[in-house]
Amino acid sequence: MQKILIANRGEIALRIMRSAREMGIKTVAVYSAADRDALHVRYADEAVHIGDAPSSQSYLVGEKIIAACLQTGAEAIHPGYGFLSENAAFARMVREAGLTLIGPTPEAMEIMGNKLSAKAAALKYNIPMVPGTEQAIANVDEAKKRAVEVGFPILIKAAAGGGGKGMRIVNSVADFEEQMQLAVSEAISAFGDGAVFIERYVSSPRHIEIQVLGDTHGNIVHLFERDCSVQRRHQKVVEEAPSAVLSPAIREQMGKCAVDVARSVNYIGAGTVEFIMDDELNFYFLEMNTRLQVEHPVTELITGIDLVKEQIRIARGEAISFKQDDLTIRGHAIELRVYAEDPANNFLPDIGTLQTYITPKGPGVRVDDGFEQGMEIPIYYDPMIAKLITYGSTRQEAINRMVRAIDEYKITGITTTLGFGKFVMQHDAFASGNFDTHFVQKYFSPGVLQQDDEGEAFIAGMLMDKLLNEKKKAVSPAANTIELSNWVKNRKQN
Amino acid sequence: MQKILIANRGEIALRIMRSAREMGIKTVAVYSAADRDALHVRYADEAVHIGDAPSSQSYLVGEKIIAACLQTGAEAIHPGYGFLSENAAFARMVREAGLTLIGPTPEAMEIMGNKLSAKAAALKYNIPMVPGTEQAIANVDEAKKRAVEVGFPILIKAAAGGGGKGMRIVNSVADFEEQMQLAVSEAISAFGDGAVFIERYVSSPRHIEIQVLGDTHGNIVHLFERDCSVQRRHQKVVEEAPSAVLSPAIREQMGKCAVDVARSVNYIGAGTVEFIMDDELNFYFLEMNTRLQVEHPVTELITGIDLVKEQIRIARGEAISFKQDDLTIRGHAIELRVYAEDPANNFLPDIGTLQTYITPKGPGVRVDDGFEQGMEIPIYYDPMIAKLITYGSTRQEAINRMVRAIDEYKITGITTTLGFGKFVMQHDAFASGNFDTHFVQKYFSPGVLQQDDEGEAFIAGMLMDKLLNEKKKAVSPAANTIELSNWVKNRKQN
Repeated sequence: MQKILIANRGEIALRIMRSAREMGIKTVAVYSAADRDALHVRYADEAVHIGDAPSSQSYLVGEKIIAACLQTGAEAIHPGYGFLSENAAFARMVREAGLTLIGPTPEAMEIMGNKLSAKAAALKYNIPMVPGTEQAIANVDEAKKRAVEVGFPILIKAAAGGGGKGMRIVNSVADFEEQMQLAVSEAISAFGDGAVFIERYVSSPRHIEIQVLGDTHGNIVHLFERDCSVQRRHQKVVEEAPSAVLSPAIREQMGKCAVDVARSVNYIGAGTVEFIMDDELNFYFLEMNTRLQVEHPVTELITGIDLVKEQIRIARGEAISFKQDDLTIRGHAIELRVYAEDPANNFLPDIGTLQTYITPKGPGVRVDDGFEQGMEIPIYYDPMIAKLITYGSTRQEAINRMVRAIDEYKITGITTTLGFGKFVMQHDAFASGNFDTHFVQKYFSPGVLQQDDEGEAFIAGMLMDKLLNEKKKAVSPAANTIELSNWVKNRKQN
Repeated sequence: MQKILIANRGEIALRIMRSAREMGIKTVAVYSAADRDALHVRYADEAVHIGDAPSSQSYLVGEKIIAACLQTGAEAIHPGYGFLSENAAFARMVREAGLTLIGPTPEAMEIMGNKLSAKAAALKYNIPMVPGTEQAIANVDEAKKRAVEVGFPILIKAAAGGGGKGMRIVNSVADFEEQMQLAVSEAISAFGDGAVFIERYVSSPRHIEIQVLGDTHGNIVHLFERDCSVQRRHQKVVEEAPSAVLSPAIREQMGKCAVDVARSVNYIGAGTVEFIMDDELNFYFLEMNTRLQVEHPVTELITGIDLVKEQIRIARGEAISFKQDDLTIRGHAIELRVYAEDPANNFLPDIGTLQTYITPKGPGVRVDDGFEQGMEIPIYYDPMIAKLITYGSTRQEAINRMVRAIDEYKITGITTTLGFGKFVMQHDAFASGNFDTHFVQKYFSPGVLQQDDEGEAFIAGMLMDKLLNEKKKAVSPAANTIELSNWVKNRKQN
């Protein structure tokens, strides 16, 4: 493999190119009109313009990607994450064009791309699933009987549902009938179909996923877990490896299950098996992502393995470069996704220019990004600016390093999740490891960020607000001055 | 320990402050007039101006450092490397001022600061020394007898010598008398003293050093070796851990010897025991450095230990945070010292402004530096701009990553050792591990760098030179154009 095309943009395109370059492989970038000056375009050995800014006219157009390959002589395509990375039809097109996709087979993508077929495949290996009904149920007595078997609290979900419509949490058998009737009528009015499923309700869920690798020689290994329980808008924002709560025994069980899930579809390449875990550390299979994850660097830091290089080796037909027993966990790694988003405004995406952009350095800090000072965050794509990843010999050291790195990261011109990340790191629930996917709803409110240091501009703005408020209250100027200077002093000590 | 003062500047001051900050310890910077705008001044919680640019008026003035401590309430001083770090008189002043030095005792510094007392201390533990005479010899017959015992080749060194004067390499007993007489007369004419030592000549020496830590509870551990054999002007420029040539058995022997050397002076803190190794992997004690080394990050990367944090813990009276048996080597790390020096001009220091300064990123890359784009390299201090450190699961991966990182590192306005570093990484002798401290003399000449890619400006300059030369030779314009375009193409493929 002499040359590969990276069918992606931003930090992940750069990250893939770095590994390719280290392997002596030439790289081809593709880019939309909005990314003409992007770093991934400058970094590549060659670059092909594939269309206008909206992804539907560029990064999502398989034909254009394949044409760019043929034009440049690239033999393989790395799709990164998002865009075409889990698109089985694209994987088939690549195969038919005589090119190699650095990823799984279209067949594996298809099975894992559908929750029902994914569960059916996993069931062959007795992978634990959230207990419940496997078929839709309409009869109330039958449903109640099943609910008692499953155990309360349970969740009633409309079979045709989505978006929380027709969904009810039921805490005891006494409430069941009433709640089921409400769920059924809601489902009928919303979807015209009253059929419902019953599932055990996991009240304090953690999102734990296992990284796996499979090669064309039948080897499948796992690279331990990532805990991605800190989410906002159901999207991951802080990830870590290993999880703060897994015992070695559970880690081994989950690893074995993940390998079995991968084996159920003869998985080739890098993939991630996602589980939900309850507060008694029972785990249940959720789904499998058939691509490299955003959060793969935390696994790289605790195992010492370069996952992109393994993907490329596997695509070349080589065996995985290590055996399961060679792997151990050393230390702890945490990733914070630095998004152009406003945590104080429900994490709404922000756009603008990176007027200041200085990344942190020093021991145990890795920054995977795709921007430089002066660049704009385009509105067309995911608003992630960077992944800030820290490593420590212990979880606490990784946390302390993350706080230090966040303080060193200087971004002005755009609101980011950096201050939110610091809030998470310094929160007792996170420090203790005792948290779940409700972390943000439970603990976060825009007000808490005002305790946080967001740089001089932020302080100045706050001072101005404070001054204006104080003025309204008609406090004497002298008292006001003293209070303000104390406030600034306290902030500086943070 | 709430607050520490860092009696240093540049990258090492920043590096120490980062660890202190991660431990929740406040930091005080000191700075000379030349460093008023330096990053270490901005990074610290407080900063004290201690004098004019020459070190003799600022960083080397112990009284000023101690005054800055007392003024700011700092309880301890981290001296970094260089400056006052191995100054026993300063260590005594610190002690007498009721402050803590984050480093060894003045007594240990004194013994290890003198080669004769250092060897005398080490001899108690039967540490191997380069075989030879322990006393000066004047009698030729006696000397010849001893030379035969030591074994040829031997080195005759003037007892009063220095700078290579009165030094002779003798390859066989037949040449001994003549060479000794020459050495003696040279020594007499140079130093007025004809006494000489005899020592086995290590013809292909490697510089291998062992990192040690000792605490106040009597624990002494080693953190494996660093190989610092690639040197220019007898100064290290590329370091790596582990060494490419050590077997586990020799590593264990050397580690044990290093711990014994440290024990011979009841060593407290971080120190480095240096050995010379011959091409049959025999090793001999050279000296002990009683401070943190420039190249300590390679040890941090292969062990996962933060050495600065361990230093601080030890100074607080805590035990080392791990036991010898907890330590293992994972992967491989290489450091390139990026100096403001011109490799094409005998590595003479360069000064000027960092017109472009973009550091590399991505997996396995750490940059410890003290500069930003637009800053000047002051003429008063060591011309090191940065330490570029790469980590890989194997030595080859660390090498490939270093080449990739060097290519990403963009510095204009100042000539650096980056291109030289790439030359080392791509040299067969380095790749094979089969090299010694003569690497630069053996393989490097300014001409080899012209094969290397130093950026567009460099290419443009070369093209201009080439055009002018071609013109002189009166080649036809068409032929010239073709040759040039091929040349550019070839360069771009490098």
